[in-house]
Amino acid sequence: MSWRATIVTLFPEMFPGTLGVSLAGRALESGTWTLDTLNPRDFATDKHRSVDDTPFGGGPGMVMRPDVLAAAIESAGERRRLLMTPRGRPVTQDLVRELAAGPGVVVVCGRFEGIDDRLTSACGLEEVSVGDVVLSGGEPAALLLLDACVRLLPGVMGHDQSGSDESFEADLLEYPQFTKPAEWRGMGVPEVLTSGDHKAVARWRKLEAIKATRARRPDLLAKYVAKLSSGVDKPPKIE
Amino acid sequence: MSWRATIVTLFPEMFPGTLGVSLAGRALESGTWTLDTLNPRDFATDKHRSVDDTPFGGGPGMVMRPDVLAAAIESAGERRRLLMTPRGRPVTQDLVRELAAGPGVVVVCGRFEGIDDRLTSACGLEEVSVGDVVLSGGEPAALLLLDACVRLLPGVMGHDQSGSDESFEADLLEYPQFTKPAEWRGMGVPEVLTSGDHKAVARWRKLEAIKATRARRPDLLAKYVAKLSSGVDKPPKIE
Repeated sequence: MSWRATIVTLFPEMFPGTLGVSLAGRALESGTWTLDTLNPRDFATDKHRSVDDTPFGGGPGMVMRPDVLAAAIESAGERRRLLMTPRGRPVTQDLVRELAAGPGVVVVCGRFEGIDDRLTSACGLEEVSVGDVVLSGGEPAALLLLDACVRLLPGVMGHDQSGSDESFEADLLEYPQFTKPAEWRGMGVPEVLTSGDHKAVARWRKLEAIKATRARRPDLLAKYVAKLSSGVDKPPKIE
Repeated sequence: MSWRATIVTLFPEMFPGTLGVSLAGRALESGTWTLDTLNPRDFATDKHRSVDDTPFGGGPGMVMRPDVLAAAIESAGERRRLLMTPRGRPVTQDLVRELAAGPGVVVVCGRFEGIDDRLTSACGLEEVSVGDVVLSGGEPAALLLLDACVRLLPGVMGHDQSGSDESFEADLLEYPQFTKPAEWRGMGVPEVLTSGDHKAVARWRKLEAIKATRARRPDLLAKYVAKLSSGVDKPPKIE
């Protein structure tokens, strides 16, 4: 059985987009996963095919109707249902791993001022966000989330790329990388990386990962430290 | 002068993607902004047009070469240069507003195990991330960031949509929205929203925004409270 992604969107022409190219695109062609779209407009019941209406309580913009959107979502059957919205909980690599391990996902893309709030409980939507920015709609966020899921499906990544999973696995950012040329614009590469001492390289990388996380993501470092104290991860040995 | 986005990517066919549709697409057609891509492969100097090599210190995967990538980036001239990477600082709506107010941006999309770290200082790259997930490359993140920027360019959003900016402006998530039908699957809408009492509606919405933020984003709520104490925002009056 292929992993199945269904996107509920007013702009089906935005898909597969980036997912039709490179690794994800080849996996789509080979049937490792499938992608289909549902347009709420096809589920509208009035003659204007309305999908939105003005918000109760006033204010600018339009809100997506719960009845029309529910009809679209429920036609996709039973899989986990995610709503991409700036109001959601931030997506994490843990969530991505869970989704990739399941049968697939239904991703609902909001537009306008958002969707009717009753839909969340009625359809069991998990509200998730990607980055603290306001988008024109959920579609770019859906592409991003699916990209993260698809690369974890069996056979999608070559063995060579599998190392990338280190990011966020251990609640640390990745260490800096260096490649040829060894000397570039007067800059060399850290000596330890050409020492051939594998233990020293591993130690240096762990420390650099911790340093980068401390400088850029103190929130992640706090999680890491909490796990250290509970004995899940071992601290780097400094000799 | 149009706002100009230049993407440095090994997959130029991924663009304009979602940015060629709807609001962003119309603004692209009308010349409000322009989009061009640069493929590092066109700047490679060996006969295989190599853009990557193995990492110093070992490990899986390939790292993008600094010399080839720098040639691509520098050919774009002087604008702010962003690198989409899980190692970066999280993008914020403040950053988006700054970028939208400037002449444009150069967005560098990493692939493989990342890029040579010397490039960051050599080219003045700002490393930013979108969501704590691992992607197959920076392209979906670049589309998302540009979507957020383009919708803020003058004339792109109709007056109707301008209310969306409330998210993250005040460090609070948006309040829940409701539209027709007023009664749906046995669920009504909160009474205050049909009361016609604008002050009561505003108060209810502010409180709901605070509740949602507390439940879903305690990190944002902490920022909000800090601003309250410094007098930047006023607390909602509860009568």
